Amino acid sequence: MTYCAALKLDDGIVFGADTRTNAGVDNVACFRKLHRWIEPGERVIVLLTAGNLSVTQSVVTLLEEQVSSGRREGRDNLLDAPNMFHAARLVGSALRSVRDVDGPSLEASHAPFAASFLLGGQIRGEPPRLFNVYAEGNFIEAGPDTPFFQIGEHKYGKPILDRVARPSMSLPDAAKLLLLSFDSTLRSNLSVGMPLDILLYRTDSLRVSLERRIDRDDAYFQELSRSWSASLREAFARIAGLDPGDPVSV
Amino acid sequence: MTYCAALKLDDGIVFGADTRTNAGVDNVACFRKLHRWIEPGERVIVLLTAGNLSVTQSVVTLLEEQVSSGRREGRDNLLDAPNMFHAARLVGSALRSVRDVDGPSLEASHAPFAASFLLGGQIRGEPPRLFNVYAEGNFIEAGPDTPFFQIGEHKYGKPILDRVARPSMSLPDAAKLLLLSFDSTLRSNLSVGMPLDILLYRTDSLRVSLERRIDRDDAYFQELSRSWSASLREAFARIAGLDPGDPVSV
Repeated sequence: MTYCAALKLDDGIVFGADTRTNAGVDNVACFRKLHRWIEPGERVIVLLTAGNLSVTQSVVTLLEEQVSSGRREGRDNLLDAPNMFHAARLVGSALRSVRDVDGPSLEASHAPFAASFLLGGQIRGEPPRLFNVYAEGNFIEAGPDTPFFQIGEHKYGKPILDRVARPSMSLPDAAKLLLLSFDSTLRSNLSVGMPLDILLYRTDSLRVSLERRIDRDDAYFQELSRSWSASLREAFARIAGLDPGDPVSV
Repeated sequence: MTYCAALKLDDGIVFGADTRTNAGVDNVACFRKLHRWIEPGERVIVLLTAGNLSVTQSVVTLLEEQVSSGRREGRDNLLDAPNMFHAARLVGSALRSVRDVDGPSLEASHAPFAASFLLGGQIRGEPPRLFNVYAEGNFIEAGPDTPFFQIGEHKYGKPILDRVARPSMSLPDAAKLLLLSFDSTLRSNLSVGMPLDILLYRTDSLRVSLERRIDRDDAYFQELSRSWSASLREAFARIAGLDPGDPVSV
């Protein structure tokens, strides 16, 4: 499996992806799931991928090919898309064309055509936007009521996001929150694994603010994980236990 | 869906179950999923159920019928099982007999035969034991390395259990931990809902120590939920954000 998440804030967008892929627990590998297309001063487009790796790699390759040939030949591609809605359409369309090729054989083997994407960033002339693209190629966009999207193994890391995520958070705080959500997931599910890729985009900068691969011995992540565990245990100890002197109904 | 969990400690076993069932989000109802068979001084047997409600209710009804007729006629039943392993076999066997009746029709409609159970308690002459019974009727038993089992919507509430659960915990602390695990799940998933049923069993007491239905206005649960949220937000604020001054690789 995979865990990817992105938070859209007033200040920008924070993206995170793990790198573990597996075909059964005895066949584990490391692949990048955070991809980006950048033209500094003009646009930053980030794509996080989850699902069948052959499908998501094919989609990313098609998008890359569209950029290299489309720029020369004046055809549609991510670096010339007029807005992020159009960029999301390009991702959906690439996904549908992979489905046309690989879908029937996968379905014949009862292997689901599984793929989902988070697409976010900013194109000059409009505010930052964040989309969740489904396996069918359709998509939804994040708004102020729901400032984050998750794909893949999303359940373990959702409670902390539900409690803490606010559009008014600072980018460093949102990065911290995202990493705590990953920490909870990494501890509870072997199919999500280090290293992590994170990327911070600041509104209207039209450049990447921070991009970092976080591996096992990353000092910030280690300290974050250690102090969060210690804080949770302290908080747990401070809350009163359920009084066993309460009436028993038996 | 459902969320049920049980923790086996040196001091006893703590059981918890929500009560929400649903056939689609537009058809939600409240059903008890914590069942128990008690003979004070002799045995306490608790069964938590998840999955298709028609299946789990049939299993519980068969087990009840076995008790009423079996006691009279000297046949196998939960209140006469010589040990908890045998009790788990009775649950598995009841489940298989329901599958024989209802399985083919469910499969014909592509509805999965979904059911799982947590069975725990103590029968005089052996220590407390806790089992996880699968939809096929086979089962596993909790040991000191893995002191808890969960069934149903288990992912949201697993991180806090993974971090805090220890066999050496006191019963009131374990009840607190179980309720925090439910709190995280209730906040993130609508298919798990109040009220909750919890039951505490103390090793060698051969009686129920505490049984309580916790509804929305339960003062202990409200305070637990409020102070846990506040503690998490404080702990979050204390940890440094990711320094955006770090080197950018773009």
